[in-house]
Amino acid sequence: MKPIYIAAYHQSHFGRLGALTQEEMLAAATVNLCAEIGVTPAVIDSASIAAVCAGSLHQQGLLAGLLAGVPGMAGKPIETVENACASGGQAVLNGIARLQAGMGDIALAVGIEKMRDSDGRADGKQVGEALGYFSHPAERPGKTFVFPHIFAEIMQQYMTRWGVSETDLAAIAAQEYANARHNPRAQMHSNAVTREQITTMAGANRYLIDGLPLKTFDCSQITDGYAALLLATPEGLSRLGISPHAGVRITGWASAVDPLQPDLRQVLEPPGAYHAMDAAYRMAGVTPMQIRVAEVHDCFTVMGALATEILGKAQPGQGAAYWVEGMARPAGDCGINTSGGLIAKGHPVGATGIAMIGWAALQLLGQAPAPLQVREAEFAATFNIGGPVCASVSTVLRAPQ
Amino acid sequence: MKPIYIAAYHQSHFGRLGALTQEEMLAAATVNLCAEIGVTPAVIDSASIAAVCAGSLHQQGLLAGLLAGVPGMAGKPIETVENACASGGQAVLNGIARLQAGMGDIALAVGIEKMRDSDGRADGKQVGEALGYFSHPAERPGKTFVFPHIFAEIMQQYMTRWGVSETDLAAIAAQEYANARHNPRAQMHSNAVTREQITTMAGANRYLIDGLPLKTFDCSQITDGYAALLLATPEGLSRLGISPHAGVRITGWASAVDPLQPDLRQVLEPPGAYHAMDAAYRMAGVTPMQIRVAEVHDCFTVMGALATEILGKAQPGQGAAYWVEGMARPAGDCGINTSGGLIAKGHPVGATGIAMIGWAALQLLGQAPAPLQVREAEFAATFNIGGPVCASVSTVLRAPQ
Repeated sequence: MKPIYIAAYHQSHFGRLGALTQEEMLAAATVNLCAEIGVTPAVIDSASIAAVCAGSLHQQGLLAGLLAGVPGMAGKPIETVENACASGGQAVLNGIARLQAGMGDIALAVGIEKMRDSDGRADGKQVGEALGYFSHPAERPGKTFVFPHIFAEIMQQYMTRWGVSETDLAAIAAQEYANARHNPRAQMHSNAVTREQITTMAGANRYLIDGLPLKTFDCSQITDGYAALLLATPEGLSRLGISPHAGVRITGWASAVDPLQPDLRQVLEPPGAYHAMDAAYRMAGVTPMQIRVAEVHDCFTVMGALATEILGKAQPGQGAAYWVEGMARPAGDCGINTSGGLIAKGHPVGATGIAMIGWAALQLLGQAPAPLQVREAEFAATFNIGGPVCASVSTVLRAPQ
Repeated sequence: MKPIYIAAYHQSHFGRLGALTQEEMLAAATVNLCAEIGVTPAVIDSASIAAVCAGSLHQQGLLAGLLAGVPGMAGKPIETVENACASGGQAVLNGIARLQAGMGDIALAVGIEKMRDSDGRADGKQVGEALGYFSHPAERPGKTFVFPHIFAEIMQQYMTRWGVSETDLAAIAAQEYANARHNPRAQMHSNAVTREQITTMAGANRYLIDGLPLKTFDCSQITDGYAALLLATPEGLSRLGISPHAGVRITGWASAVDPLQPDLRQVLEPPGAYHAMDAAYRMAGVTPMQIRVAEVHDCFTVMGALATEILGKAQPGQGAAYWVEGMARPAGDCGINTSGGLIAKGHPVGATGIAMIGWAALQLLGQAPAPLQVREAEFAATFNIGGPVCASVSTVLRAPQ
């Protein structure tokens, strides 16, 4: 296996990107990413794109062709990958596969999502319908907002099975909103939300589905945003003029897909998700105890709790407690979602998995905003999922040595 | 580089698949593929899916999760790739990349498309709109059927630039309809269409866009179908109990993306398409002269002519002449689209690139129907494109030695 380095990372502000088109977002992500290290897109050997709602919200496919129009990108191998909300993570894994296969030495992974209109408004019904495509058809009838509804059911199952309360799960969102206050690129950068507010029905906060515990503040955001990573082999790093002693490495990675069919799922302990995380740890030669920084897929608070368990930081049913006890804080046992997570940083679907890895790399480089910076972290982990706990992508990163 | 073998190939009948769902198609493709060599899906290490209109025509994403529900497939790395009509070819390349990268030894590439309803009817307007997603937005206004319109313009440009006639281009469709009569899995298996019928306005045949030369018989079909390939390293082949002396090898492969933006395109001599084909030849160590069998992307007759040129079998502008002179016949210089091609075999978009490689492999194994079998062919080539001559995937295959 060749060592895989993160040569550069770039992220837009997450939230509202006005009238920017998908074509402009792909171009800005790629050009600005390269500018981070003073190169141009001509250095890139291949690219994978994640743009999950490009077809459903914008009637656009073949984004590879749009990216090929960026100066320096024509004639290269470019593809779009889709594994629902894990598409960004999958794009990174496909870049790694090409580098390992000897198909070039510098791979781009770029994720974009334009979920709001040019005035910044989100059409919740339209977005809900578009994201509903990533559920099994049998599971949709009777659900207006398919994914919030499915996760409201999962939340109820989780709470019942493990004796966890809404207040326990609110600790996850409260910590993430607190983190996002220090992340200038987070959508909820200016919003202070306490645990009390999350569990109190007032203002925008309400129970979204009758009889189920999911509230507005349990949910991630509808977000415009893009994120891009430049991955390189040692040869690629040398071409880019970057010292291997300066680069974060991806030392473990894996993906695994659990069935989408409701009757085949085990959402509270998804075997594929656990398998992907364990395989990434094994490849990296680390144990969960060594992980001091993590970015995980908290599309809803209950998924944040489950992800904490999948990460190996808590036993099944103990994920929320890890947050309640402050273990997930930047200065805790392991800083989880110090970026603000999907709930407070935002969830531009295609960009999410890439932004997780990018933020974790910034942490290992000591480049996180001071109040969020985790001290002396050598290893970080990421866990990105798509669908109702279906497609999982996990990575382990190692700080420069 | 590890040798890459085609361990198995399976294709449905192309045409109408009744009430079969996408989920059932993925399952049938995978199970029947494995049955071709007496194994079960449990042997598969990873999978790439191509299903281009799954979102637009069926409101379904995350097909990886549907495939994970097939017994033996849960918990594996599975993804969907999209490069418009080159998605099938891209799925094969992604499987090869994972094998080269050491991510397992047996990779599945499966392509499906359900374009007709359960009664076999195609809603041409809806399909046209869904395929229109793969054009640049600036190119859509004023076009009812975006792709036929774009290719009608390309056909006109091609004819004007090179002094080629409609009758010349009709030779491509006529040969393909003649071939399909001998391919029991072709959509146009029972249709005899002569060159005279193709250039005569009668029955279903008409000029599709006022003032442009594209006729009904210049077009590929709206098709239900699936196709799947099992790719293996030598270790994988051994696990499957197949002798390396019995397997067709993929000895060259490449992809390249030309810009989708109309002002950046060079459709008559697309640089990326030529580059991908040349790179595959170089990797395989062969010249176009050595290719005796080819399957190329004839979404419209003009693309069949262009593909013949990109293949290196004719100079620019001479592609149609190659067919007129009978050089593309099964017994000619190189049997091109002996399957019937997209025009007469059918074009189930996601399956197309996979079916090209599969049919070429059958040819090299001597398993094509007798009237279509090319004699003593050692090498075959495939060329799959997506969009208006945008995303290209090329391969070179070698017969068992």
